[in-house]
Amino acid sequence: MSLQLLSEHGCFAGVQRFYKHDSRETRGPMKFAAFLPPRARHAKVPVLYYLSGLTCTEETFAIKAHAQKLAAELGLMLVAPDTSPREPRLPGDADSWAFGQAAGFYVDATRAPWSSNYRMYSYVTRELPELIQSELPALAGMASIFGHSMGGHGALVCALRNPAQYRSVSAFAPIAAPSQCPWGVKAFTNYLGNDRSTWAEYDASELVARKPFPGKILIDQGSADQFLTEQLLPDRFSTAAQKSGQAFELRMQPGYDHGYYFIQSFVADHLRHHAAHLTH
Amino acid sequence: MSLQLLSEHGCFAGVQRFYKHDSRETRGPMKFAAFLPPRARHAKVPVLYYLSGLTCTEETFAIKAHAQKLAAELGLMLVAPDTSPREPRLPGDADSWAFGQAAGFYVDATRAPWSSNYRMYSYVTRELPELIQSELPALAGMASIFGHSMGGHGALVCALRNPAQYRSVSAFAPIAAPSQCPWGVKAFTNYLGNDRSTWAEYDASELVARKPFPGKILIDQGSADQFLTEQLLPDRFSTAAQKSGQAFELRMQPGYDHGYYFIQSFVADHLRHHAAHLTH
Repeated sequence: MSLQLLSEHGCFAGVQRFYKHDSRETRGPMKFAAFLPPRARHAKVPVLYYLSGLTCTEETFAIKAHAQKLAAELGLMLVAPDTSPREPRLPGDADSWAFGQAAGFYVDATRAPWSSNYRMYSYVTRELPELIQSELPALAGMASIFGHSMGGHGALVCALRNPAQYRSVSAFAPIAAPSQCPWGVKAFTNYLGNDRSTWAEYDASELVARKPFPGKILIDQGSADQFLTEQLLPDRFSTAAQKSGQAFELRMQPGYDHGYYFIQSFVADHLRHHAAHLTH
Repeated sequence: MSLQLLSEHGCFAGVQRFYKHDSRETRGPMKFAAFLPPRARHAKVPVLYYLSGLTCTEETFAIKAHAQKLAAELGLMLVAPDTSPREPRLPGDADSWAFGQAAGFYVDATRAPWSSNYRMYSYVTRELPELIQSELPALAGMASIFGHSMGGHGALVCALRNPAQYRSVSAFAPIAAPSQCPWGVKAFTNYLGNDRSTWAEYDASELVARKPFPGKILIDQGSADQFLTEQLLPDRFSTAAQKSGQAFELRMQPGYDHGYYFIQSFVADHLRHHAAHLTH
């Protein structure tokens, strides 16, 4: 698992890097972004993973979320992977912007042809953290995770299934009950098949109803988000969280939509939420 | 001159908007971005214009420069126009990324066919400010300007030629002596013709040697910028500024390249530089 440095850019006295490597999980090349704060020059630092949404790449968060300034101050490494395998190409992988390329949904697919490469769950929770731990100045055992939309779904699922691995979790406008919305149903049907019992392991609302994450979950959601009532369904997650007694804050943000102007407006609160668990 | 609102996005309790309008100068549609700080809901606010570099659009600054948070706090409107006319198309306007489309160089072209539409100098210094003044909550007489690369050149030229119009000026990695670098020579030859005496009005180093801008000019320049020694030539500008006694600060920033990771790292200093002239 050797890393190829694609580019690096000075940024707030730290460095924004883009890497490529051969992935054992997706059986092809994968890219990710890593922001290293100034502190990482001489010390190991905690890692905050960010999972992006539909249509995004490993560059989206680094360009649009405006997180580097505060991450530099807080001493956090920011790691953002791509949103799906890109090679080898599979038949139909670009037919829809909500499935296939840039829409891996952070699951391990079990249906052909996707099962051979679309293993983003194992990539994000196992392979990528191992790589970061071995190749970058990452403090062992100090990681948290957040994400947006499809990546908010991914972050919640990763954390709820691996509470010992992530110190904290948060999300912007997550697809909070994917088994109950068109994007999720399409993705899960194709990646996992028609047996809905297999979907529960990738549905944050199902998972949180079963067992709470040990720590408060922070979710920001724009009230003017065009996907709110059909695709995102934070109310379902909220109801499920209450069942298990999950500590939970859902902040409805009036006037904000689904995009990165929303995310940049509240990303500082998320970084501080995670830093409180990672740096104390 | 009526404005068409293309989109708006909640952003740091203000709003990031994108507009389109029919331009009298470029004789076609033009787009620009405007960030309105929260204060603009109930009061007129100063306007800080930003001119982008080669290959950029009206979206680049809004997405990549990370300026909205502090602009919201300082109460500044941020206005960023596109970098050239886009319609009507002209023969050869997309043959080079450094000329034509997205490369208007903020000049009023005098050579055919460019002279009919490529009038970005008049667009930026006259038409756009009139539009902002009449259609948005802009405080009269309170405007400043900055920019990056080709847009840094543009900002310096606009301010040096119109010192009564701009309270302050700054630039990131400007093309500081365009008559002496390949990008500038190519653009000026095609837009203005072979008579170099006509180029001086669009060359910041020529202008500043003649007459200083009434106030300190701030320039940030990355030391790792790949265009530094061939295209940007801040040393020429520095020498010229000394001739006229221009108050001037050139900050060489070690480890930073030509991109927006550099800009975002220092944009706060530029906003504060301008706010000191616009809000006191």
